[in-house]
Amino acid sequence: MIKIPDFSDIENASKRIAQFVHKTPILSSRLLNEIADCELFFKCENFQKVGAFKFRGATNAIRSLSKDELAKGVCTHSSGNHAQALSLAAKQAGVPAYIVMPKNAPQVKIDAVRNYRAEIFFCEPTLEARETRLKEVQEKTGASFIHPYNNFHVIAGQGTAAKELLEDVSNLDAIIAPVGGGGLMSGTAITTKSLHPTMRVYGAEPKAADDAKRSLDAGKLIPSLSPKTMADGLLTSLSDGTFHVLSTHLDDILTCSETSIVLAMRYLYERMKIVVEPSGAVPLACVLENKEMFKNQRIGIIISGGNVDVQKLPF
Amino acid sequence: MIKIPDFSDIENASKRIAQFVHKTPILSSRLLNEIADCELFFKCENFQKVGAFKFRGATNAIRSLSKDELAKGVCTHSSGNHAQALSLAAKQAGVPAYIVMPKNAPQVKIDAVRNYRAEIFFCEPTLEARETRLKEVQEKTGASFIHPYNNFHVIAGQGTAAKELLEDVSNLDAIIAPVGGGGLMSGTAITTKSLHPTMRVYGAEPKAADDAKRSLDAGKLIPSLSPKTMADGLLTSLSDGTFHVLSTHLDDILTCSETSIVLAMRYLYERMKIVVEPSGAVPLACVLENKEMFKNQRIGIIISGGNVDVQKLPF
Repeated sequence: MIKIPDFSDIENASKRIAQFVHKTPILSSRLLNEIADCELFFKCENFQKVGAFKFRGATNAIRSLSKDELAKGVCTHSSGNHAQALSLAAKQAGVPAYIVMPKNAPQVKIDAVRNYRAEIFFCEPTLEARETRLKEVQEKTGASFIHPYNNFHVIAGQGTAAKELLEDVSNLDAIIAPVGGGGLMSGTAITTKSLHPTMRVYGAEPKAADDAKRSLDAGKLIPSLSPKTMADGLLTSLSDGTFHVLSTHLDDILTCSETSIVLAMRYLYERMKIVVEPSGAVPLACVLENKEMFKNQRIGIIISGGNVDVQKLPF
Repeated sequence: MIKIPDFSDIENASKRIAQFVHKTPILSSRLLNEIADCELFFKCENFQKVGAFKFRGATNAIRSLSKDELAKGVCTHSSGNHAQALSLAAKQAGVPAYIVMPKNAPQVKIDAVRNYRAEIFFCEPTLEARETRLKEVQEKTGASFIHPYNNFHVIAGQGTAAKELLEDVSNLDAIIAPVGGGGLMSGTAITTKSLHPTMRVYGAEPKAADDAKRSLDAGKLIPSLSPKTMADGLLTSLSDGTFHVLSTHLDDILTCSETSIVLAMRYLYERMKIVVEPSGAVPLACVLENKEMFKNQRIGIIISGGNVDVQKLPF
């Protein structure tokens, strides 16, 4: 298992990345509070560079490399926000980035990564092909592999979003973040339980991709088997490292239906006036499905990102 | 002509409304700056209460009334953001609001006003019927008429958005706001030319509703004759008061096509991750049509609002 960061690592990450990342705004809506029967404080990582929290972890990972490592660049496998985040963070640091992507990745995601001048290596759309291709790239380039979430520095970087939220909003009763691979959730949980040991921390998952819920209930890692949810950022399974953090830090994992995700997205667009991706609406969807649990409380929510095809919104 | 506020009136408005309005965030996007060839700073009044800058002026107008006036309440004619703004500002101040609306107003706008507990008086959808109905309401209730833009306190309130923008972002070369009736534009121009006499100030209008452009060019007020633009907040014509301010304070009025409005909206959704109404995208559309004018400069833009049917976006 990877080494797990503690809060001092997250504090160091915060200092390391401060000049490179946006300190994103925290938004609230009176109308949305009335709908949800509680006070909601949204940490808007959809306004982060590349449109997602992933830029925090990627920047922290790259800025933690040695001079020799930096010279050889970084690599990863991802067709989503982590690929863009690592590409931009590498470009800003002046080092090469190599991205392994399935050859059926959407053109818009390929273009986004190319726009940051990363080099793309295509592979067949299978887990095995992806790992083989990544190994080839590593052997050829000597680049450091930055895993999207099973990485000490990535988790530490993602924990800086909750740190900013907790510094700016006092007296929260609970904090909720979406769970995909568990990098954001791990960083959020470590930060929260370190600063406020009695504050409740919840993960939020679509019912249709509830591998983290099932893993925590079973007390062992149960990977997702080709889950189908519109929350395309939450399809991945936990790693041993993030499973360990979630098992030891979370109060519970909440789940929500696809219908609730659409409703939550629509509320965020109509009431908060922000563009979020389906994954980013999952925590609000879980609040709406569990209103009694949060009634009249102060709840912090991390909006993970805003990368969505605005021509194909689900409402 | 109404009395025109000067900057000291805007400073007073700012103090008067501070505890009631949101200090809205100012957002930027590196990608959008690359597209526009300049540095853009967006003052996001789409995040204001009721989703539009109108809440500033309405709050300032109500909070400037005497105790006797307050007891009788306020009234206006509007089916748009001003109706909602006045209704909420009145509710917050604990006074009645009476809104005259055309009977063919969209149900969603009627519901929004009712939600703020204002009393609605319907009228035929003509200018004459609207004014007759408003007079009846005034006679019956004794309420103070708060005009959507031809009002000293409303203009002073709208000027506080530019004040916040100029206090938070230094060294702007120009500032641009949309022009409908001219209330926001007047407040923006008075603030800007008072604080920075050499900073350029531009109005932004759809070509399809360019009554302010034509009025300023002709040196006299030329009202709009049933203009057709998707920017439904900019259909109204200037008043004598706002025409006077714009004539004496603006460097120019820029116009844009409907196609540019759609493109600008899409950029704001995709790159900035914010929901804006068509009127709010008009200043960016004008920048995109006049890139040489702003090349490499620092430009402040006021996003007027975000009240749009997200199920009927034009892209």
